[in-house]
Amino acid sequence: MHRTRVRVVEDALDANNTIARANRDDFDRSDVTVLNLMSAPGAGKTALLERALAEPLPGDARAGVLEGDVQGSMDADRLAALHVPVVQLNTDNGFGGECHLDANMVRSALGHLPLDEIDLLVIENVGNLVCPAEFRVGEDARAMVCSVTEGEDKPLKYPLMFRACELVAINKSDLLPHLDFDLDKLLYNVDVVNPGVRTIVTSARTGEGVEELRRWLGELVARRVPATVPG
Amino acid sequence: MHRTRVRVVEDALDANNTIARANRDDFDRSDVTVLNLMSAPGAGKTALLERALAEPLPGDARAGVLEGDVQGSMDADRLAALHVPVVQLNTDNGFGGECHLDANMVRSALGHLPLDEIDLLVIENVGNLVCPAEFRVGEDARAMVCSVTEGEDKPLKYPLMFRACELVAINKSDLLPHLDFDLDKLLYNVDVVNPGVRTIVTSARTGEGVEELRRWLGELVARRVPATVPG
Repeated sequence: MHRTRVRVVEDALDANNTIARANRDDFDRSDVTVLNLMSAPGAGKTALLERALAEPLPGDARAGVLEGDVQGSMDADRLAALHVPVVQLNTDNGFGGECHLDANMVRSALGHLPLDEIDLLVIENVGNLVCPAEFRVGEDARAMVCSVTEGEDKPLKYPLMFRACELVAINKSDLLPHLDFDLDKLLYNVDVVNPGVRTIVTSARTGEGVEELRRWLGELVARRVPATVPG
Repeated sequence: MHRTRVRVVEDALDANNTIARANRDDFDRSDVTVLNLMSAPGAGKTALLERALAEPLPGDARAGVLEGDVQGSMDADRLAALHVPVVQLNTDNGFGGECHLDANMVRSALGHLPLDEIDLLVIENVGNLVCPAEFRVGEDARAMVCSVTEGEDKPLKYPLMFRACELVAINKSDLLPHLDFDLDKLLYNVDVVNPGVRTIVTSARTGEGVEELRRWLGELVARRVPATVPG
């Protein structure tokens, strides 16, 4: 018997992905590369960005930042000191606050972002190793920061997050001498859940890995396929 | 004009709270005190429990642990070595995994817990500073672990979590000499969002604060109001 298999295109039914695609179209129109940057709370996303964006990026790519937080604007204030356009997005309208950014929240911020004046938008997500990886926001790439203080087991406990990213920055390397922490074991566990993923060992304090991170950001902008969406 | 205000009793309509209350009744029947223990990923909940539960608690209270994780059973395996009853609860049935425990997940584990053989059940929640604070699971008390590596700003960025707890353990104090971290500033910020909340500075590595934490756990069991639910 011939059987026809009807596949439900879940993707098309998913409101978040529909809005993410609309965001992506807007980013394309302005030729902006978008990075969704994720981590656990306190892993050092903002400190790394402060170091990485302190000078113009390779290729003179101009960066902007969208700061996602449950509450407060401390990170946005820190980054604004760099004279990089920064927009704060708080998720605390809901009960207790949303634990992630979704495409619609990002969409609500688009009008406040000078998209035509930047080449790279870094979306600093809410600190959380679960839900941010489940919601596309219209980004070109996803990266995460994992602090060595969090232990070697995190890739195995939060595999979706590590799997969702094409770069894992292993941060706070300056603390390695003071920890019972096996860097090789973490790198092994990262590779188990996301084989071959690019990793960079970083420290916002000593500057280790920051140049490599800056080069990666520059390459991300350079690899962008020119927009096909009519402007 | 006389106006009557009808208040919608949201609580009674909330399925999670209804199930949490059923859990609580079961805990009451077995005279078990329940602590919901929360933190960001890698803050050191398990390591602190390993230290705190290595010996019988004050008052000879017998402890058990319910381990919540998106995936894996590494923490449960660590705690099982202590000869404390441990049950693992994984949240990864959903897409990407749930970022918190809710009352129904805890309920699904109750049959696996030797409630009549323990006096204290510690529920180690999924590592996350947002949603776990929004879901009651039937607990008597909530506590959190905040690592000094996470920065002083966390209470201001995740206020609901800090507000929900009656104890904040400030962990990894052994790393203080190696961090740009102002402990007084963190304590001030904790007090801003939850005035007067009890704090204990701890280190699972050096043992600092572990005896105080054990005393607090013992007091938690001792203060329990005898069950009024028929057994």
